[in-house]
Amino acid sequence: MAEYPYKLYDYPDSGNGYKVRLILNHLQLAYSYQAVDILAGETRQADFLALNPNGRIPVLQLADGTCLAESNAILWYLGDTTHLVPTDRLQRARVLQWMFFEQYNHEPNIATSRFILKHTEINEERQQALDQKRPAGYAALDVMEQHLANNEFFVGEFSIADIALFAYTHVAEEGGFKLASYSAIQRWIDAISSHPNHCPINTISQA
Amino acid sequence: MAEYPYKLYDYPDSGNGYKVRLILNHLQLAYSYQAVDILAGETRQADFLALNPNGRIPVLQLADGTCLAESNAILWYLGDTTHLVPTDRLQRARVLQWMFFEQYNHEPNIATSRFILKHTEINEERQQALDQKRPAGYAALDVMEQHLANNEFFVGEFSIADIALFAYTHVAEEGGFKLASYSAIQRWIDAISSHPNHCPINTISQA
Repeated sequence: MAEYPYKLYDYPDSGNGYKVRLILNHLQLAYSYQAVDILAGETRQADFLALNPNGRIPVLQLADGTCLAESNAILWYLGDTTHLVPTDRLQRARVLQWMFFEQYNHEPNIATSRFILKHTEINEERQQALDQKRPAGYAALDVMEQHLANNEFFVGEFSIADIALFAYTHVAEEGGFKLASYSAIQRWIDAISSHPNHCPINTISQA
Repeated sequence: MAEYPYKLYDYPDSGNGYKVRLILNHLQLAYSYQAVDILAGETRQADFLALNPNGRIPVLQLADGTCLAESNAILWYLGDTTHLVPTDRLQRARVLQWMFFEQYNHEPNIATSRFILKHTEINEERQQALDQKRPAGYAALDVMEQHLANNEFFVGEFSIADIALFAYTHVAEEGGFKLASYSAIQRWIDAISSHPNHCPINTISQA
């Protein structure tokens, strides 16, 4: 484990992994990086399953070797007690509300469509999946737009809920979702992207 | 809002709603109950969308009228600072890890299959959905079984992670998932069901 307090097992194009890279950058925490080739099935091999029996990246390994999975749980682990998680009880639950929304309504539609379009050959089954995910993904964007029309960020003044939802929203067009009519989402994307500690997706920094 | 500190908008057969009813029972918190007919589209009507723009139950309304959505965020809201959420930083993140696993890997396969089988007429499209969800649901049960073979509960000594995963696991057979070979899961179901503050699904108690 050597000199870095954290080791991130990740796939560079993953938005779920990007959430973790982004918070590490915001908090200026150093980490070592192990790329895992999900397309080659590396997350299903025994050595990776020993880190996360659920066979998914990202996985954050702590200095003592302990592994934590699920991008949004990692965000909470790193963000709690910092300015990225509010202290008020209801606000904290609201952060989680948006993060569960992200994993249930947003990621399975928008991220998965992006994955199909970027990394697979389209066949009839995949086209059918895209067709099903399209209205559900737009419904998630509609909910976000409605909230952001009246709020600068999802909760308070920028939190891990924003990081979680930013990861796949800002590349939603790669999943076939047009953002042109979502003016509040665009304003929010611009605000997050212009933060001094921001880094683009695919950035692998060791701080 | 009257005499009860909480009001739960819910559908009695929903496992997501049951999570909230179960924690309210564990903590012996009184609540009023508003049944919402999801089959009749009531969650898509304007008066409900004013409570939760994402159009889903359960919704917990606080005494001041504030609404909180997403079953697992509600579990955190009610459970944090009680014996149902650990105090250790890593353990707290581990609770969230299992709850995000529940919403991403478990619920969309097991709960959705149960819903299709219980509440819809099977057509070709729905049969196709069931066929896709079957292996993914069993994969989630396999991950649970592996963990419970070496741990009495998901995190520590019974937490909201157990409540979240119990809700749809104990009725997985209604979704077509056979639990006979999952001995650790069965032991865990029995342990939870025998707690003095337990209540069965469909229970609507006002404590």
